[in-house]
Amino acid sequence: MRSPAGPKNNGQKVRIGKGAVIDAGVLLGYQPSRGDSDQLIVGSGARVRSGSIIYGGSKIGQSMETGHNVIIREENEIGDNLRIWSNSIVDYGCQIGNNVKIHSHVYICQYTVIEDEVFIGPGVTLANDIHPGCPDALECMKGPCIKRGAQIGVNACVLPRVTVGEHSVIGAGSVVTKDIPAGVIAYGNPAQVICRIEDLNCTTGLRDKPYSHLIRSLKDAYTIG
Amino acid sequence: MRSPAGPKNNGQKVRIGKGAVIDAGVLLGYQPSRGDSDQLIVGSGARVRSGSIIYGGSKIGQSMETGHNVIIREENEIGDNLRIWSNSIVDYGCQIGNNVKIHSHVYICQYTVIEDEVFIGPGVTLANDIHPGCPDALECMKGPCIKRGAQIGVNACVLPRVTVGEHSVIGAGSVVTKDIPAGVIAYGNPAQVICRIEDLNCTTGLRDKPYSHLIRSLKDAYTIG
Amino acid sequence: MRSPAGPKNNGQKVRIGKGAVIDAGVLLGYQPSRGDSDQLIVGSGARVRSGSIIYGGSKIGQSMETGHNVIIREENEIGDNLRIWSNSIVDYGCQIGNNVKIHSHVYICQYTVIEDEVFIGPGVTLANDIHPGCPDALECMKGPCIKRGAQIGVNACVLPRVTVGEHSVIGAGSVVTKDIPAGVIAYGNPAQVICRIEDLNCTTGLRDKPYSHLIRSLKDAYTIG
Repeated sequence: MRSPAGPKNNGQKVRIGKGAVIDAGVLLGYQPSRGDSDQLIVGSGARVRSGSIIYGGSKIGQSMETGHNVIIREENEIGDNLRIWSNSIVDYGCQIGNNVKIHSHVYICQYTVIEDEVFIGPGVTLANDIHPGCPDALECMKGPCIKRGAQIGVNACVLPRVTVGEHSVIGAGSVVTKDIPAGVIAYGNPAQVICRIEDLNCTTGLRDKPYSHLIRSLKDAYTIG
Repeated sequence: MRSPAGPKNNGQKVRIGKGAVIDAGVLLGYQPSRGDSDQLIVGSGARVRSGSIIYGGSKIGQSMETGHNVIIREENEIGDNLRIWSNSIVDYGCQIGNNVKIHSHVYICQYTVIEDEVFIGPGVTLANDIHPGCPDALECMKGPCIKRGAQIGVNACVLPRVTVGEHSVIGAGSVVTKDIPAGVIAYGNPAQVICRIEDLNCTTGLRDKPYSHLIRSLKDAYTIG
Repeated sequence: MRSPAGPKNNGQKVRIGKGAVIDAGVLLGYQPSRGDSDQLIVGSGARVRSGSIIYGGSKIGQSMETGHNVIIREENEIGDNLRIWSNSIVDYGCQIGNNVKIHSHVYICQYTVIEDEVFIGPGVTLANDIHPGCPDALECMKGPCIKRGAQIGVNACVLPRVTVGEHSVIGAGSVVTKDIPAGVIAYGNPAQVICRIEDLNCTTGLRDKPYSHLIRSLKDAYTIG
């Protein structure tokens, strides 16, 4: 491990597990502006690439891997095996499970909940402010909840307080304005439920159904209105 | 104030007011490629976070605050209290008023006008080139005009020469292809006017109407066709 | 040329042509995680701005110019005169022709083909994974093909395996789900063909038709169904 740069990176501000590989030009334990910095805790086996900045006051599990210029702010609780690619931002106060993949150019807003095994595609934006400019916006602020195994396609956005159900797939460029049940394909602006994931067929000839392995785990888990 | 890095950051190229806090790894007065660099002028109380780059030849008011990796190019005139968050870009030749908030991953194109109190949500892209590839594109280039107090939702894009009216709110993921009058809610692809902001109700129970405080200032300011 | 930073930037890992101007804070020949790094080859006249990272194992032609914080990964073959602006990412395994312009905040996914003279607008996202989470996703992965002279408008996304035809123009905020023929204007979510480019009129009074110079080269090149 090379020594990270920045004035706050002393032993008290950052506790990082064994086996970390941290590029030069990474800032760990950056001081939040929202009050005193708590300790940044990162589990073993972290791989953090150049330009990334992780604030003090977040707790991240084992085997995190980042691309370049990733920003993870304070007060986040993040599980094991996070993969987060270049230029993505996790704002403060989020809860993120295990084995989550966040691709490039993603913005995860404050107070988002992302469960285990979720995939967030490139360019996705999550929102937490229903009526920007409302005088009660700070009190109202709440991000979406992306349930276990859900897949969010490229450049989609998910609106505040919306839940995307377990193993559901949101198509590229969608604007998700309402809750999406578990186990469905949904897309469009606004996103509409199109079919169950078990009804989707492979279009490239590699297999019969892309999500056949999930059908058993989803039985009785969803309904389509 | 720590000393900013880079070969152009001498006293002649950058004039910055009192009380600035500039992280290591910031470039101030970066040399534009479009001719000789003029001076960068920044008012008092600036807070510029690591990775940000502000070109020579822009003039920025007091109390600017940036996130990380913000890029502000040359020939911009920017008022007081700009808040601009991580990874956002202001291209050259823009006019930006006071108390403007530009969130993360935003692209403000050349020759954009943004009036006071505007909010630009995460992932918003503004455009200035109606017909990319047209031989007259350079001459034709003109950004949108976002009027006072307008709110642009996440991942929206606003097309060239479009005006978004005073205190209007553009919903997430919208594509704004035509002028939007003052004081309305508009969304969709293409964006359509949905209602007046005074007709919008709070959906989280915190208050009656999110924009009731604006109604008086907007009386007689708009019509919906 | 100032010396680029980083541990891998020795003569064996990076071969760069004459006349390069490389800012401090650039990483050339960054080590890919996907196996041993091959040499990074960059032609003469490169201009690489601060914060940009170009991986080992890519081959780039003459006169490349980048903005800041550009990331170009391994196994890319890129022609002459690439212009790629700030915060854009080219993932691995792409083929990019000559005179291509990639604007800001763009994500070019793995295994994309971009032909000569293409323009990719700010905030565009290309996708290569039809059904994210499918167990065969790695084998299936294939990006779009953007044919010669096509113009992709701001914040559009183009889905996997889709071809955008020669000199076609994709409107802002479009979601391109199916092949687009040559020489047409298409937009919307999902993108629909609207007209031939020769039928489009200038709306700012600078000329008669923005794409009249292309009509001869496109005769007999396309049909609209």
